[in-house]
Amino acid sequence: MGDRSIRVLGLDPGLRNMGWGVIDVSGNRLTHVADGVVHSDDRDDLARRLVTLYDGLQDVIRTWTPDEAAVEETFVNKNPVSTLKLGQARGIALLAPAREGLPVSEYPPNLVKKSVVGAGHADKTQVQAMVRMLLPGFQLSKADAADALAVAICHAHHSQTRRLVGGIMAGAAR
Amino acid sequence: MGDRSIRVLGLDPGLRNMGWGVIDVSGNRLTHVADGVVHSDDRDDLARRLVTLYDGLQDVIRTWTPDEAAVEETFVNKNPVSTLKLGQARGIALLAPAREGLPVSEYPPNLVKKSVVGAGHADKTQVQAMVRMLLPGFQLSKADAADALAVAICHAHHSQTRRLVGGIMAGAAR
Repeated sequence: MGDRSIRVLGLDPGLRNMGWGVIDVSGNRLTHVADGVVHSDDRDDLARRLVTLYDGLQDVIRTWTPDEAAVEETFVNKNPVSTLKLGQARGIALLAPAREGLPVSEYPPNLVKKSVVGAGHADKTQVQAMVRMLLPGFQLSKADAADALAVAICHAHHSQTRRLVGGIMAGAAR
Repeated sequence: MGDRSIRVLGLDPGLRNMGWGVIDVSGNRLTHVADGVVHSDDRDDLARRLVTLYDGLQDVIRTWTPDEAAVEETFVNKNPVSTLKLGQARGIALLAPAREGLPVSEYPPNLVKKSVVGAGHADKTQVQAMVRMLLPGFQLSKADAADALAVAICHAHHSQTRRLVGGIMAGAAR
């Protein structure tokens, strides 16, 4: 893939706080581009909250023009009402980039942690510290944004592997 | 509200089959307008399936131009994976009409059954038979569409009550 840079949007879904983070990936080099959280107001009705999340994500995608998106797989909660809520927010996190034409990958939380910290059972503080170390431009103010950047980093590792393997195979076929 | 007719879109959310039904409500009179099911292909990835559902609903809304939407509240399943899937589909059912500018109401399944059959614990066959009786134009081919029409009927009853009470109160205030 040479020096071509790929811009990745990572998303950490939540109904109240939808974390997002954008990084550029060029070979082994990761560069922080932007991050933030789209909030929905819990005094609004559910349909209105989902519109706020969708429109916020659409705005992020149109502003930062990522090439690919990665979404953390939702931890299935023991509380079914929470699971349903998270499912609704997660539907929006998958829909918005897909409707903007981006390929969307999903990664389980353990793989995200392992990619960033090196262990599948790292805690939130370790993930945040490693994200800050890997992406020097990142100001650690919002935990949801750190998690979203971690998903983007995870995607960078795994999609590079896929591309490399794809490249080798394409080379072998020539 | 006199003879002014209100067009209601009812939605029965599901990831594989999203049922929809449109009725016109004029005073006590209900008229069947259209119904159908938006399918998503389970061989597609989840993001693609959600786009199919969203685009299908947007198309229904732009074709039939309802004034209001009503969505059945999701039955929280004991299986958390099913609940998560249903949550994602339900997020789309709430988002699509809200983004098209429609007010969206939600009704629990028991209230939908009670409004249509007169009992909160009616089975699917009873609901379908009553929908067919209340809406003579409806050809019973798709169970999901019958449930969606039942939600629209439920909304017609409850929103009329609200409007009537609103009208009486507005009259008393004059």
